[in-house]
Amino acid sequence: MEASDQEKKIAVLGLGSMGYGMALSLRRKGFAVAGFDVRPEVAERFARESGGQAAASAGDAAKDADIVVVVVVNADQTEAVLFGPDGIARTMRKGAVIMSCATMAPERARAFAASATTHGLDYVDSPISGGAQRAAEGALTVLASGTPAAMAKAEPALQAMAANIYRLGDEPGIGASFKMVNQLLAGVHIAAASEAIVFAKRLGLDMRKVYEVITASAGNSWMFENRVPHVLDGDYTPRSAVEIFTKDLGIINDMSRSAKFPTPVASAALQMFLMTAASGMGKDDDASVARLYAQVTGLELPVAKKT
Amino acid sequence: MEASDQEKKIAVLGLGSMGYGMALSLRRKGFAVAGFDVRPEVAERFARESGGQAAASAGDAAKDADIVVVVVVNADQTEAVLFGPDGIARTMRKGAVIMSCATMAPERARAFAASATTHGLDYVDSPISGGAQRAAEGALTVLASGTPAAMAKAEPALQAMAANIYRLGDEPGIGASFKMVNQLLAGVHIAAASEAIVFAKRLGLDMRKVYEVITASAGNSWMFENRVPHVLDGDYTPRSAVEIFTKDLGIINDMSRSAKFPTPVASAALQMFLMTAASGMGKDDDASVARLYAQVTGLELPVAKKT
Repeated sequence: MEASDQEKKIAVLGLGSMGYGMALSLRRKGFAVAGFDVRPEVAERFARESGGQAAASAGDAAKDADIVVVVVVNADQTEAVLFGPDGIARTMRKGAVIMSCATMAPERARAFAASATTHGLDYVDSPISGGAQRAAEGALTVLASGTPAAMAKAEPALQAMAANIYRLGDEPGIGASFKMVNQLLAGVHIAAASEAIVFAKRLGLDMRKVYEVITASAGNSWMFENRVPHVLDGDYTPRSAVEIFTKDLGIINDMSRSAKFPTPVASAALQMFLMTAASGMGKDDDASVARLYAQVTGLELPVAKKT
Repeated sequence: MEASDQEKKIAVLGLGSMGYGMALSLRRKGFAVAGFDVRPEVAERFARESGGQAAASAGDAAKDADIVVVVVVNADQTEAVLFGPDGIARTMRKGAVIMSCATMAPERARAFAASATTHGLDYVDSPISGGAQRAAEGALTVLASGTPAAMAKAEPALQAMAANIYRLGDEPGIGASFKMVNQLLAGVHIAAASEAIVFAKRLGLDMRKVYEVITASAGNSWMFENRVPHVLDGDYTPRSAVEIFTKDLGIINDMSRSAKFPTPVASAALQMFLMTAASGMGKDDDASVARLYAQVTGLELPVAKKT
C-alpha cells in the first residue's frame, strides 16, 4: 500500500452485519471512513466505536469519497442508492470508484457499471462472502471483476477488507456470475442438509451421531457442517435468513429461464425456501428449512434452552 | 487383536473394486481368506496376488469360514447369495457371522438379520464407504450396527479393513439408515455440482477458475471437490457409476414414500440421474450428469486428451 492510500476517503453505504464490519476494517487500516445507514443510530455507533464519520445521508457520505462501498441487500437497493431520485452517482466526485457488494444477477451488475461510466465513475463488481465475523476481521472473500483502472482504484479498500481477493476478469458481471454459482450450490446444500437431517430423525437416528458421521463422509458439504448445528441446538437466530435464499435462488430461477438453462435441483431447493418463508419463518435463520420438514411430517426437533 | 484371530477363516464374496481391496487387506493382516467372484479369473488373480484361496463357489468359500463378508451390489444380490436356491446360509458353520456391506434399505437389512438368526448365524449390518483405493489400504469407513455378540465376532475383520469404524447401535438396519442419509446427500451434491458447473459454463465463466473459487467458498461440498475434476478433465471412466445413484436415490424414493416423508430435493436429483442413465451413460462415471446438462443445453465440455 502506498503512503498516500491512507489519505483516501472511503464511504460505506449500508452498515448491516457485513457493512459494519467492513467499515471497521477500513478504519483499522487508517482510512477516513464515512458510514451511512438508514438507521442513524447504527452510523452513530460506528462513529463512536471507530472514530469514523456518521453521515446523515448516502449523498453526504459519498460526495467527496475516492471509493464508495455499497453493501445493501440486493440489486434494487443498489440501484436506488446509486441512480435513484437521491442517487449518489450525480454528486460523486468524477473519477471515483464504486464497489458494489450486493449479490445480484450479472446483467444488473453490467447495467450499473454502464450507468456509472455515463456519470464519469468507475465500477467494480465485487460481491462478498464470509459472514459478519470475517467482515469485522477484514478477512472476507471478494469475487471481483472490472476494468483494470477500476480495480486499481478499489485495490486499497479490497486489501483492507479481504483475506481472499479473486480477480476474475475485466468485465463487470463476472464477479456476480461467480457469486450466483456459489449461491446455487449453497442454497441447494442448505435444503439438502435440512431434508437429510430431518429424514434421519424420521428413521429414528441420533441426529448428533448423524452429524458426526456425515461431516467425516462423502455426503458432507460446507453448509451441512455449518448449518446443521443450528438445528441440533434449536437455535434459529438469523445468521443468514431464509429470505436471502428465496432472493438468491429466485435470481437463479430468473437467470435460468432467461438463459434457457434448466436448473431442476436449484428449483426444488427454492420451493423449500419458499415454503419455509410462507410458513412465517422468512426472517429466521436459513436452517429453518429443517423446521419446515419437521412441521410437515410431525417430527420434533431440538428446542433451544431458555436463557 | 488376539493371537488366535489370525487363525480365523474369512470369506469375501464379491471381488469388485471394493471387495478385492478388502480381501487383500484381510490377507495382509494374516487371515486365511477365500475369495469368490462370479468372474473366476478375478478370484484366481486374488489368489495369485495374495496367497489367498480362489473359491469355485460362494458356498465353497463360506462353508468353513468364521466371518463371511458379502460385498455385492445391492440387497437383491445379497439376498440371493445368502438365502437364494444356492444360498450359503444353509451350509455355513453355525455361530459364524455375516458382514453385509451393500448399500440397502434398512428394512432389508433387518429382514436379512432375522433370517440369519433362523439359520443360527450372526449378522452385522455394515455398509462401507471410501472407494476402491481406501479399500485396498484397509482404510475404509464402516457404518456398523448389530448385536454385541455379532459385532464382537466381526471385530477382527473390521479392524483389518477399516480406518473408521462407527459402532452405531445394537440393531441391524441402523448402519443401513446412516448410509442412506449419506447417499441422499452425496447424490444431491453430485447433481448440484453438475448443474452448477455447466450453468457456470453457460454464463461464460472459466470452469477451472470456478472450481478454484467454489472449493474455497461456502458453496463447496465433498462431492463438488471430488467429481468436478472429472468434468474438467473430460474423464468419465467410472470410479462410481451413474447407476449406483439411480439405485441409491431410488431406495431413498422408496423409503420416502413408505415413511410418508417428502424428499423433494433428492427426487429432483434422482430425475437427473435417471435422465443421464436414459441417455446411455448409466455405466459411466456419475459426474456424467454434467454431460447430460451440457447435452440438453448444447454446450461443449472439455474432452479428454487421447492417449
